[in-house]
Amino acid sequence: MPNHRGMNGIASPEQTAGKSSSEGTDHDTAILARWVIPVDSDTPRVLERHAVCIKGERIAAIVPNDDVGKTHTARRVVDHSDTHALIPGLINCHAHTGMTMLRGYSDDQELQVWLHKFIWPAEGKFCSPDFVKYGTELAAYEMLKTGTTLVNDMYFIPDVSAEVFRRAKLRAVLGEAVIDFKTGKVKEMVDGSIDFIRREKAKNDPWITPSVVTHSSYTVGEEWHAALARANNSELQVPFHTHLHETEKEVADYHTQHGISAIDSLDRAGVLNERLVAAHCVWLTDEEIDKLAERGVNVCHNPKSNLKLASGVCDVVKLLRRGVNVCLGTDSSCSNNALNMMSEMQLASLLAKMKANSAAALDDFTALRLATINGARALGKADVLGSLEVGKYADVVAVDLSADELLPIYDPISHLVYTTARKVTDVWIGGHHVVDGGHVTTVQVEKEQIKLFAEKIREFKAEILAKDAQEADKAKGG
Amino acid sequence: MPNHRGMNGIASPEQTAGKSSSEGTDHDTAILARWVIPVDSDTPRVLERHAVCIKGERIAAIVPNDDVGKTHTARRVVDHSDTHALIPGLINCHAHTGMTMLRGYSDDQELQVWLHKFIWPAEGKFCSPDFVKYGTELAAYEMLKTGTTLVNDMYFIPDVSAEVFRRAKLRAVLGEAVIDFKTGKVKEMVDGSIDFIRREKAKNDPWITPSVVTHSSYTVGEEWHAALARANNSELQVPFHTHLHETEKEVADYHTQHGISAIDSLDRAGVLNERLVAAHCVWLTDEEIDKLAERGVNVCHNPKSNLKLASGVCDVVKLLRRGVNVCLGTDSSCSNNALNMMSEMQLASLLAKMKANSAAALDDFTALRLATINGARALGKADVLGSLEVGKYADVVAVDLSADELLPIYDPISHLVYTTARKVTDVWIGGHHVVDGGHVTTVQVEKEQIKLFAEKIREFKAEILAKDAQEADKAKGG
Repeated sequence: MPNHRGMNGIASPEQTAGKSSSEGTDHDTAILARWVIPVDSDTPRVLERHAVCIKGERIAAIVPNDDVGKTHTARRVVDHSDTHALIPGLINCHAHTGMTMLRGYSDDQELQVWLHKFIWPAEGKFCSPDFVKYGTELAAYEMLKTGTTLVNDMYFIPDVSAEVFRRAKLRAVLGEAVIDFKTGKVKEMVDGSIDFIRREKAKNDPWITPSVVTHSSYTVGEEWHAALARANNSELQVPFHTHLHETEKEVADYHTQHGISAIDSLDRAGVLNERLVAAHCVWLTDEEIDKLAERGVNVCHNPKSNLKLASGVCDVVKLLRRGVNVCLGTDSSCSNNALNMMSEMQLASLLAKMKANSAAALDDFTALRLATINGARALGKADVLGSLEVGKYADVVAVDLSADELLPIYDPISHLVYTTARKVTDVWIGGHHVVDGGHVTTVQVEKEQIKLFAEKIREFKAEILAKDAQEADKAKGG
Repeated sequence: MPNHRGMNGIASPEQTAGKSSSEGTDHDTAILARWVIPVDSDTPRVLERHAVCIKGERIAAIVPNDDVGKTHTARRVVDHSDTHALIPGLINCHAHTGMTMLRGYSDDQELQVWLHKFIWPAEGKFCSPDFVKYGTELAAYEMLKTGTTLVNDMYFIPDVSAEVFRRAKLRAVLGEAVIDFKTGKVKEMVDGSIDFIRREKAKNDPWITPSVVTHSSYTVGEEWHAALARANNSELQVPFHTHLHETEKEVADYHTQHGISAIDSLDRAGVLNERLVAAHCVWLTDEEIDKLAERGVNVCHNPKSNLKLASGVCDVVKLLRRGVNVCLGTDSSCSNNALNMMSEMQLASLLAKMKANSAAALDDFTALRLATINGARALGKADVLGSLEVGKYADVVAVDLSADELLPIYDPISHLVYTTARKVTDVWIGGHHVVDGGHVTTVQVEKEQIKLFAEKIREFKAEILAKDAQEADKAKGG
């Protein structure tokens, strides 16, 4: 069979037999699949009728299904050999999981109205350990169910969310988000953020990676960015996460106020390096793209959120061509209104075609890479995550492609990215079977508590709207 | 409760009790729901804890759930009272269902390469009554399962697809697509197309509406458009369906060759009127938009296909503001690669916000209207379809909003449009329960036949690719 993509790029069991395998091993789990899509190189590769074998937290072998039970035995065999594709766990590089209680709380509002009138007041009133706990649980539940195995999170009270993620067995990179509302509390937040990082680093937990998180250059001064970068580049050495050049207005306003771009300010502060995950980056000049590429900055594209808030469309193709590592995120379920990386992957590909004015601009396999290996690279974890390879952590997603409405199947990668009926049914993270036949095994959503909370938030919004209506009446009357 | 949208726009059972009801009636079916979203006016309305009662093919009453079994009895009660939203059947105003055998057959190709190298040759070789039958069955199955109750179809051999739709109990508007490949067969196609319309009109079947279908102005001459328009505007009086101004290149080329735009040519031919559903309309001048508005032309927006083929983005907001009736379609599962109107609805809203540079540009309820009442209007059926109203056909879709990952719910319309986990579980068309608990009751997908067919198509594509590789080698060698 020629090694060509799409119709022919599928290796037969004979071609790969014995490869990447340690024969005779007793594995904990063997997942038999119709297709294994390892995402282990820049060109698409599909292993037909192969199994991923797990031992402990790691992938121990990838072998033809027929070898399972013969040269490779496992305590548990999950048989998806006629139906499923296995892909690496999806990596959501930009989310605000604690906000999930605000899913659908405010739609169809201009960004500034959305933030200043609805979101920030609601967070000001309701953000508490419980708000974060219930929201993060909801988020973890949805992310697991849709194949996300690692999230780069930006929210408050990270001790609470770290505990939720630890219990959920969903990997997270997270920290205390620093934002300066001129309350004089920014130093406290910065110190708290560094404390959190030190404490979590000491635990050396493979599930939780602490990070430096600042909301943005326009809400946190350059001096604080510089202080955090100094600490991070010397002692801490963890991922750094911030919003960058999300909207045209924000970029222009920053320049007017500071006489410099937010990117140059971050560069001066020492933030621009390979540790940085810069969310959005919708508005960049060519020179700025070159600077991000030179510094090794990772850009997190959030296609649905950028559309829903009318922020614009990040030029992913241009970024990739110039050598920037681009990964993918959902942003919050308040501007999305889901945390589903399968659909982000699709949208990333579709939007890139539009932006580049070429249907060939960003193909299905590249979209899958944005959501997997590029995310791992962005978070400094490409040596252990982001692809299905022997020795890496067993973060594996099984996608059911057997629905009648998916027929015919010429190419499983096309179906993963472009169809809608493909369905995640099983997820393993570090070997733990966290989604089993569509059921999340590690998170219980506290429905009644969430409903009570939502009721209060609903009343709060009703008050905002009633005040609006009153003021409109007054304006009319006067 | 103030009559405000979103947090408060939900009418309590007390407010609507007795309205739109014919008390004491024995209904065939009563569908109890958590929310009924009737789409019966320009402003959003949500009836809380209401039921849609069906008698025969029609909606007989919409009453509070509590009245079912008391003032309103029914032979069968479907209880979704804690979980579901009921919406009108979704109307897919532009599809090529017979092409479904080519789902995922060719992705990530430039439009011209896609058409000339892959699609048209494959259709030339494989398009047959069986190809259309299996493809249409697949399409019908998927459309039913995702809540589409009426499709405006453009393909060949419509007698075969009409039979499939009739058996599936999925409403269809369809005709013989006329396309002139300079084979001298265009007169035959035009005659055949008119014959089909006459035959189907004589049957007076509420499920199948025949239509005039031309591929486009650039593949069918103005004289044929004029002949078809004459027949249609006098005798036939059925919907007219064509592609219009889909790509920038096509628009420019047409003008170069004909010294006139395709729109002006169609106007001269008598095609531009309220019977026309013009698919795509991505590239329009302001004057052309005004002309479409004046003539009452209906524009069918196909957001995902336009992105995937990099055709551009139709300016839906501008069209709506200028008074054009805009409806929604999937295009074929070869450029989509699904036929899911739930996701088109979401994408239509997101893209409109981007295009208009305003997050408030096209809200969730407007997106729902594009997919329902506007579609009915486009096909001349707004008097009997497109909304949940007493006397209209009982085309009803039940969407399950009870998944934990949909919590919290502030507004069911937001969840219908913007979340990803909302799931169609039941569909009634003309009172027939065509999807029952997620299972399509009227279509059997012939999996083995489809697989055999797909294998031949796979080989055909492999030959194209092999020839390509050979030619590339030759070019290299020479």
